[in-house]
Amino acid sequence: MGGDEAPLKIVEGGLQALREGRNRFELVFVGRKEEVESEILKFNPSGLNYSIEDAREVIGMEETPNVALKQKRDSSIVVGVNLHKERHVDAIVSAGNTGAFMAASTLLLGRLKGVGRPAVGTPLPTINDVCLLIDSGANSDSRPQHIVEFGVMGSIYAREILKKKNPTVGLLNIGEESSKGNEMAQAAYPLLERSSLNFIGNVEGRDIFAGKADVVLSDGFVGNIVLKFAESILPTLRSRFKNYATGSIVRSIRAAMAATTLKKVLKGFNYETQGGAPLLGVNGISIIGHGGSTALAVKNMVLRAEEMVNHNIARLIESSISKIEVRAS
Amino acid sequence: MGGDEAPLKIVEGGLQALREGRNRFELVFVGRKEEVESEILKFNPSGLNYSIEDAREVIGMEETPNVALKQKRDSSIVVGVNLHKERHVDAIVSAGNTGAFMAASTLLLGRLKGVGRPAVGTPLPTINDVCLLIDSGANSDSRPQHIVEFGVMGSIYAREILKKKNPTVGLLNIGEESSKGNEMAQAAYPLLERSSLNFIGNVEGRDIFAGKADVVLSDGFVGNIVLKFAESILPTLRSRFKNYATGSIVRSIRAAMAATTLKKVLKGFNYETQGGAPLLGVNGISIIGHGGSTALAVKNMVLRAEEMVNHNIARLIESSISKIEVRAS
Repeated sequence: MGGDEAPLKIVEGGLQALREGRNRFELVFVGRKEEVESEILKFNPSGLNYSIEDAREVIGMEETPNVALKQKRDSSIVVGVNLHKERHVDAIVSAGNTGAFMAASTLLLGRLKGVGRPAVGTPLPTINDVCLLIDSGANSDSRPQHIVEFGVMGSIYAREILKKKNPTVGLLNIGEESSKGNEMAQAAYPLLERSSLNFIGNVEGRDIFAGKADVVLSDGFVGNIVLKFAESILPTLRSRFKNYATGSIVRSIRAAMAATTLKKVLKGFNYETQGGAPLLGVNGISIIGHGGSTALAVKNMVLRAEEMVNHNIARLIESSISKIEVRAS
Repeated sequence: MGGDEAPLKIVEGGLQALREGRNRFELVFVGRKEEVESEILKFNPSGLNYSIEDAREVIGMEETPNVALKQKRDSSIVVGVNLHKERHVDAIVSAGNTGAFMAASTLLLGRLKGVGRPAVGTPLPTINDVCLLIDSGANSDSRPQHIVEFGVMGSIYAREILKKKNPTVGLLNIGEESSKGNEMAQAAYPLLERSSLNFIGNVEGRDIFAGKADVVLSDGFVGNIVLKFAESILPTLRSRFKNYATGSIVRSIRAAMAATTLKKVLKGFNYETQGGAPLLGVNGISIIGHGGSTALAVKNMVLRAEEMVNHNIARLIESSISKIEVRAS
């Protein structure tokens, strides 16, 4: 029931994932049964391996997470995360209220052993490929040792899911030298250097799109500001195109042609292709979708969740985190 | 002598500014006299109101600022800032080593009375106009009261130079509510609310390009990361276009046509039009240029410097800062 166009787009994307996945997994839709059912019937679902778990309440996109979680025990978010907690399902994805879904995942699933702070890893496009920005918003303040954890979790995701061999890890900072940055960055640098991560030093804002590091580390405050700024680039372009095209036929034709080319040029820059942002470090597989998720975005999230289950990401993180701790002590 | 194409582009842009300014100000070029002279002669300078101040040393773009400043007392940066300190000139602009130029400006000119931390204000394009991101890199760690100072300085610049009536001021954060963000942001919010600034609350990463606030406040760590990320957008587009166009004539024609339109669509998004980034809070007028400054960028910086002198920006800041202090105590 979460997301700007739920349940329609959620259902459509989910069924697409089932088709593409040839029924090798079962999909459980969580929400108001009759509403979900009626959307499903629009897409000729016969032979697809799905079921519906009834949840009568919906947490709105603008509701305060903690209040909503307490009051709406029968919301699709709470019911869905509990299904995962009890291992009736192996993973959960949601395009709903991000704060509520993050809080439900963290509180109900709990943290993996050794993980101090779960973190959101968001795949961002680069000139040639993709990188992972972690933490992109789970935490407001982080301590230097949390940044190392983010590095461990992000490296596993980059290796297993983004197919990066020995992923490079960079610390988001304002200069190359280890002495640069705020107190947190200065303290995190030597910890990263001593870790077993493939740490390549500091990376700057301009190095993100350039793809200098496969995993870009930051606290969730900086990461979330950068992420939301990045997400505003395509809408800004669209808005500029619209302004330019208005009031002249020649301009509107030029704009339409340029926009068509630009879409091809920027292939992969759209968040829809990226399969959502995993909340890494919780005891399970939880993927956060964009509020405006389209069917394509939902499909990719579901397939990504299956991949994370198959690669046993949570167990890999737990085992790597414990090794880091031994090394540090 | 500073900048990737110095002294050629500096001289070219400076002379363009003199032509456009119809000799209402005098321009002093600082650098190796014979080199500067020989560049000047390429541009038919007769009748233009310029002179050359000899400085034999050059601080490279990659040199460590503090070391370079100590060792190169006869560099164009040190000689130029000293000229301003002694009020032989009313303002100084440089496209050279940013760290060295900032440090020289802060140390030699000193701070305005009441200013704790000078800050860089960088004009960023928005969908319809421009906003000022301050601090975009002068300080790594800031205290909440410094953020208020940035607000005062940024508001004066936005009002006097960017022509914003009663400029709106937003705090860069990760959510709208006052309780959001890291400790620094949470502590700065009530101070901004109590100030005489036109504070509109928190703004998020996506609100920058949307133009939600005329002045966007952040500490220099976050601001610099956002700025450098923003600066990477156009080069990333260029690189993507190039990759797309390679290897197919049809594609290369399409890309060329789209790029032409895109330039018009993105008019104003290029830093060259923005007139550099003022270092506000120092006792003088100091404008930091992009290392890759073109003649157009240099011209706009020089004209912007003249405007800042005419509007008496430094004195306005000093007087406003003193009022804020009285109000806060």
